[in-house]
Amino acid sequence: MNEMTPNASCEALVQLKAALRKNRRDAHHRYFQMATVTAEGHPKNRTVVFRGFCADDTSLLVITDRRSEKIVELEQNAAVEVAWYFTRTREQFRISVVTTCVDYRSQSKEDLALREQVWQQLSEAARAQFFWRSPGRPVDTGAAAAITDAPPETFALLKLNPVAIDHLVLSKVQTRRLSQLKDGRWHEHWVNP
Amino acid sequence: MNEMTPNASCEALVQLKAALRKNRRDAHHRYFQMATVTAEGHPKNRTVVFRGFCADDTSLLVITDRRSEKIVELEQNAAVEVAWYFTRTREQFRISVVTTCVDYRSQSKEDLALREQVWQQLSEAARAQFFWRSPGRPVDTGAAAAITDAPPETFALLKLNPVAIDHLVLSKVQTRRLSQLKDGRWHEHWVNP
Repeated sequence: MNEMTPNASCEALVQLKAALRKNRRDAHHRYFQMATVTAEGHPKNRTVVFRGFCADDTSLLVITDRRSEKIVELEQNAAVEVAWYFTRTREQFRISVVTTCVDYRSQSKEDLALREQVWQQLSEAARAQFFWRSPGRPVDTGAAAAITDAPPETFALLKLNPVAIDHLVLSKVQTRRLSQLKDGRWHEHWVNP
Repeated sequence: MNEMTPNASCEALVQLKAALRKNRRDAHHRYFQMATVTAEGHPKNRTVVFRGFCADDTSLLVITDRRSEKIVELEQNAAVEVAWYFTRTREQFRISVVTTCVDYRSQSKEDLALREQVWQQLSEAARAQFFWRSPGRPVDTGAAAAITDAPPETFALLKLNPVAIDHLVLSKVQTRRLSQLKDGRWHEHWVNP
């Protein structure tokens, strides 16, 4: 039997958390790549830093500048695919997600508290970037903002909510498992690598 | 002056080659992520291995199985964005490319010779995968093929031809340069990181 019994929890997410532990000595194990699609249908791709899981223990958190192009792309198309390769354990998670953006205009008290909490955990250097001139604009255009303690309007949180996971393990015996969320349950089965 | 004089050669590609040298002690410096778009407009993303440059010294070479989903995606939309992060030098190249697929049906003698040459350079283990059962299909479906010396029909070469590069350097002083190919010349300028 390749098809496992549909379950409320996702075995691939359990494996992802195990990979985070097993690769923690790699300085870059929290970096992954996030692909979006522009309004014109072109792919875009960039490296981001994983900031932890949401309270649901499932959604991945990423921070971004509201002035960045990915915000425009996500307003048009909230679908993202994450490619997360762990070098030590030689395994890859391709995670299809639906993205929610949390910024200063959010109506949810819980979301605003989470945004505040992630902000407080950032280093000074990471915070400083949100007060810089507009990313992607020619240098020396626009003014840098005065640094504040509270999260500035430019600071946004992305919640990446997984709907499908493709987990490939490249160790001695290669394995590959596909997981899909349907009607609130995870359907998982093994496929050829 | 942010805008540099348009040039037939691309400074960002020179920097990419320098990054390959400077990061060569990192076991994974030749891995990058490749984003495509499905016919339905969804982003897809995966880690691939850089196999060198084409004779034009500009296009990136990647190998793939013709039975993989990215082949279907590329037939619909040849646009790809590469995200290539170098951990040692802390720099990222986001490379927008147009992709050409070279397989056993190619009409160009030069392309077929290149495909043969890349095949000959592969390890036994890398070659073996092209004789496995269909990737992404449920396990135990289909038959594995007999191993041959010549490249099998499943073996394809992707030529990723850069049309734009976004080079971000995260060392002490962060810098970011955008490069775009227009009418055969590269236009490059500095932007805010």
